[in-house]
Amino acid sequence: MELGLVGLGKMGGSMRDRLRRAGHTVVGYDHDPEASDAGSLPDLVRRLSAPRVVWVMVPAGPATRSTVTELAELLDEGDVVVDGGNSRYTDDIANAEVLSTRGVGYVDCGVSGGVWGLEVGYGLMAGGDAADVQRLMPVFDALRPDGPRDEGFVHAGGVGAGHYAKMVHNGIEYGLMQAYAEGYELLHASELVTDVPGAFKAWSRGTVVRSWLLELLVRALEDDPGLSELEGYADDSGEGRWTVQEAIDHAVPAPVITAALFARFASRQDDSPAMKAVAALRNQFGGHAVRAADEAGPASGAADPRP
Amino acid sequence: MELGLVGLGKMGGSMRDRLRRAGHTVVGYDHDPEASDAGSLPDLVRRLSAPRVVWVMVPAGPATRSTVTELAELLDEGDVVVDGGNSRYTDDIANAEVLSTRGVGYVDCGVSGGVWGLEVGYGLMAGGDAADVQRLMPVFDALRPDGPRDEGFVHAGGVGAGHYAKMVHNGIEYGLMQAYAEGYELLHASELVTDVPGAFKAWSRGTVVRSWLLELLVRALEDDPGLSELEGYADDSGEGRWTVQEAIDHAVPAPVITAALFARFASRQDDSPAMKAVAALRNQFGGHAVRAADEAGPASGAADPRP
Amino acid sequence: MELGLVGLGKMGGSMRDRLRRAGHTVVGYDHDPEASDAGSLPDLVRRLSAPRVVWVMVPAGPATRSTVTELAELLDEGDVVVDGGNSRYTDDIANAEVLSTRGVGYVDCGVSGGVWGLEVGYGLMAGGDAADVQRLMPVFDALRPDGPRDEGFVHAGGVGAGHYAKMVHNGIEYGLMQAYAEGYELLHASELVTDVPGAFKAWSRGTVVRSWLLELLVRALEDDPGLSELEGYADDSGEGRWTVQEAIDHAVPAPVITAALFARFASRQDDSPAMKAVAALRNQFGGHAVRAADEAGPASGAADPRP
Amino acid sequence: MELGLVGLGKMGGSMRDRLRRAGHTVVGYDHDPEASDAGSLPDLVRRLSAPRVVWVMVPAGPATRSTVTELAELLDEGDVVVDGGNSRYTDDIANAEVLSTRGVGYVDCGVSGGVWGLEVGYGLMAGGDAADVQRLMPVFDALRPDGPRDEGFVHAGGVGAGHYAKMVHNGIEYGLMQAYAEGYELLHASELVTDVPGAFKAWSRGTVVRSWLLELLVRALEDDPGLSELEGYADDSGEGRWTVQEAIDHAVPAPVITAALFARFASRQDDSPAMKAVAALRNQFGGHAVRAADEAGPASGAADPRP
Repeated sequence: MELGLVGLGKMGGSMRDRLRRAGHTVVGYDHDPEASDAGSLPDLVRRLSAPRVVWVMVPAGPATRSTVTELAELLDEGDVVVDGGNSRYTDDIANAEVLSTRGVGYVDCGVSGGVWGLEVGYGLMAGGDAADVQRLMPVFDALRPDGPRDEGFVHAGGVGAGHYAKMVHNGIEYGLMQAYAEGYELLHASELVTDVPGAFKAWSRGTVVRSWLLELLVRALEDDPGLSELEGYADDSGEGRWTVQEAIDHAVPAPVITAALFARFASRQDDSPAMKAVAALRNQFGGHAVRAADEAGPASGAADPRP
Repeated sequence: MELGLVGLGKMGGSMRDRLRRAGHTVVGYDHDPEASDAGSLPDLVRRLSAPRVVWVMVPAGPATRSTVTELAELLDEGDVVVDGGNSRYTDDIANAEVLSTRGVGYVDCGVSGGVWGLEVGYGLMAGGDAADVQRLMPVFDALRPDGPRDEGFVHAGGVGAGHYAKMVHNGIEYGLMQAYAEGYELLHASELVTDVPGAFKAWSRGTVVRSWLLELLVRALEDDPGLSELEGYADDSGEGRWTVQEAIDHAVPAPVITAALFARFASRQDDSPAMKAVAALRNQFGGHAVRAADEAGPASGAADPRP
Repeated sequence: MELGLVGLGKMGGSMRDRLRRAGHTVVGYDHDPEASDAGSLPDLVRRLSAPRVVWVMVPAGPATRSTVTELAELLDEGDVVVDGGNSRYTDDIANAEVLSTRGVGYVDCGVSGGVWGLEVGYGLMAGGDAADVQRLMPVFDALRPDGPRDEGFVHAGGVGAGHYAKMVHNGIEYGLMQAYAEGYELLHASELVTDVPGAFKAWSRGTVVRSWLLELLVRALEDDPGLSELEGYADDSGEGRWTVQEAIDHAVPAPVITAALFARFASRQDDSPAMKAVAALRNQFGGHAVRAADEAGPASGAADPRP
Repeated sequence: MELGLVGLGKMGGSMRDRLRRAGHTVVGYDHDPEASDAGSLPDLVRRLSAPRVVWVMVPAGPATRSTVTELAELLDEGDVVVDGGNSRYTDDIANAEVLSTRGVGYVDCGVSGGVWGLEVGYGLMAGGDAADVQRLMPVFDALRPDGPRDEGFVHAGGVGAGHYAKMVHNGIEYGLMQAYAEGYELLHASELVTDVPGAFKAWSRGTVVRSWLLELLVRALEDDPGLSELEGYADDSGEGRWTVQEAIDHAVPAPVITAALFARFASRQDDSPAMKAVAALRNQFGGHAVRAADEAGPASGAADPRP
């Protein structure tokens, strides 16, 4: 099958490779001319035979929105656009509308797996009309991992459902990562467990906590057993925030995912205004009166009055 | 190798089977005579040739403590006792002391894997003296999963380190389970994702969240797609509590593991005294003054004054 | 001073009383004719002399938005509208724009104190242009509690700042209420403290936790010492959600306010889908293999393999 | 009434002053001779007429325990010891036992109010036998704030109940402080609210969040509007930890109090091992494959694959 692929970065570039290995014809476009097959977006469209499939793999937000808008101008009735980036599901609904006025179909597809996907395959969550999704199945089958189709691909619902499922996937991921991280810190703090990397590695097989994330942590600890080359600083890419906002909008308690998100926020603060306020309150308990009392020479031995 | 095994329940019974399959000679004792090989604990000890190995697999707490105390009377210098249950690491230190006065060695071993371990093997975390652990390696090798030894076994440190590592393992597990659970509830609440079990199943391969727990959840959703046959009620077995208490003792922030534990506590409450107090406060905002005002016939259209 | 007041419910009605007691001339309008002074919104505007002040005290959201839109049609250059409801600050910016095209000023004012404000006065947080705020000072002075002006009123910033400050005020309130509620539940669970209402009452004076909310809880416990007439069910009115969303948008960790919000969500669930998922996972640990093993008659005494 | 007072630090020294102002005869002992009335603990006991009352006000833990043990040697049947420090309730039960063998009574009394108590009075929570508590009422009445007795004093239950109530009081306090602190940080982060100290001050009267802690924060912000002279670093004194441990022991969800405690733990970390682990996992998503791909010159424009 023939398709266009816009965005040939780490993800897009690897996906092009995986699709070509599976025998598909991929015309890639990137603003980096060395990576690009086509000279421009119009050129990419020209090189494809109708009905066309164009997979967009550029950063979520304005870049994806403007690429879709530009494609709406260039494509024809019967073509289909897939957004494989990490867009918020609300963008999907807008994208589908822009394209539907031109008779162009739209499928959103959450893609998980990172750079490992080239070899392992990508976990895929698609949203859109059944006919559009059906038409793209050869592409999905090439990208997803080997094994039963339903273990690496889902048609999760209408437009937006793919990115919604991916958003929740990422929210879960925040919680999983923080759970291992807290366990790591506690083992690290313990005087009793003298082989922390060994404990994590021993969990690789047979245990209840075995997972792909655990394998990654084992790798990291093998490279750097005390994680001494890293700072305790973690960015977030948006999807954790969206997950919490959706949870709030649906009155769903999500304490674990939220705690994981807040831990990342806190990790990026040099100094916490909130904790300054707590410190200020603790100081006030001892207030000016205390300092006056001190000058008068009070005795030692007091219970600390500051809770 | 020959060993005694005390406690032949779900875990102990399966472990006897796995050890025998590996060619070891296991003399089991259980208070259920149908399951037991020996007629009593003294009988079990008599049937073993010195130096003996006795693996204890009974419920943590008083049952394990009293079994160890009884074994201290029965065993001789050079024998070794292994506690493979879910004991708190503080019990291990007491157990080791009781046995050491008789010259009997002690190894604590956290065992993960549940009933799946019979076929898959058990993840093992051992604590104790190197010589004692070394002597038990044939047993550990039979119980652990196939594959490299260090992917299913660790000698984590001195006495108590095995159960400490297991405790942290279980604490992590609480966080992992709750992360998937929150994601499940959010997908369930979403109008957009129409195939929730399918989304979970599609995460089985290639995604960042793939894990053994995910596989279990996929199985559960295949049996009962809406989990309609289950109540939202979750017990806890103690190790989550101990993990949080250790975190507090070491001043380690553990918001995710703790949130997972509290979610279980809340799941078991028919009615929450805390939320009664919140409701009482919300009522008070509108207090008696309001009811008096109501009788006087106030107008409608008010902003709800109760935050 | 003369002003119009739209919305004469619990809050608006009491505010009219308090303003009149202070000597102001208030023309009230409510869709309940018994409470209303004016027959319609146009009638209310006609009864006021230019330059007019109209205070809107109707439910936040569509009701406030449409009232402001209607007022924009009726008012003239130099008039001022105040929104004293619990609007989201983003609505304020829209409201100010609608009015400014007519030369009408806009001030948003967060109002705290509930039904107690009639006697005690209302805590006020205003946002808007300094000139508009200045002009309204006689109204603010009548509504706020006696005492220094800056202990019951703040001009917090431009349009939206008043409601923003009120939103944060309410977010804090969620945290405060939940803190007392958790303490209540723990005292309630303790076997040691036999006089729980007495303990709360004893905190009324001299302690670090004394507050107005504490006084309300003491009142509630005097009426109903075990809170037995209440269900542990707590609604939320939106401002807690907005606070958490703002925290997320600003990467501010807000674990306490968020935990308080989630506790309310959980209090309203008959059954928790998330905890069904946790229960499902716990069941799977014992899965089909266990049931088969059970049928084969395994021994008792096993350590519970389900963490 | 006559009593001995052991420990004349900030708290004990002020309490001696307040008791003397009320007409009581206080013989103080402190290891600082300048503050002390008596030369030693035996000397203090000698100076008191039987039946004696000795109030202990030294740091919780070993210092209090050893003072009580020493007093058990020195006192006689019919005397009473009061522990007014921040002891854990479990210590009370041990203290009472030590003293009861000598026929000496024991009352534990939680004392709140910090250095402000000298003028305002102290909030008191007592535990012990009714007769012992009754006998001490003149002392309690002198120490507690003016006003109705039950608004500043409670006989909460048997031995330990006073400190238990105080522990919960302090746990609540952690939650209250953190709630204000989070609100402070969010206002601080907002571009809209330009007068943050003014907003806090305006909450002093009439609002739902008014409290003594708010007053202290207002004072702190008046001294230092941006809290720029403080670090975001907050110690904890033990009672927050005990509260959470009690909550866990009673299966009481306490997410707010616990989050407040964890925020303090995190505030004291230069670098977080947990967040190093999260950072390590995020790095692994881009793992070695990525670095190899980078060397091969991949295109730009990729969606960030790291959640």
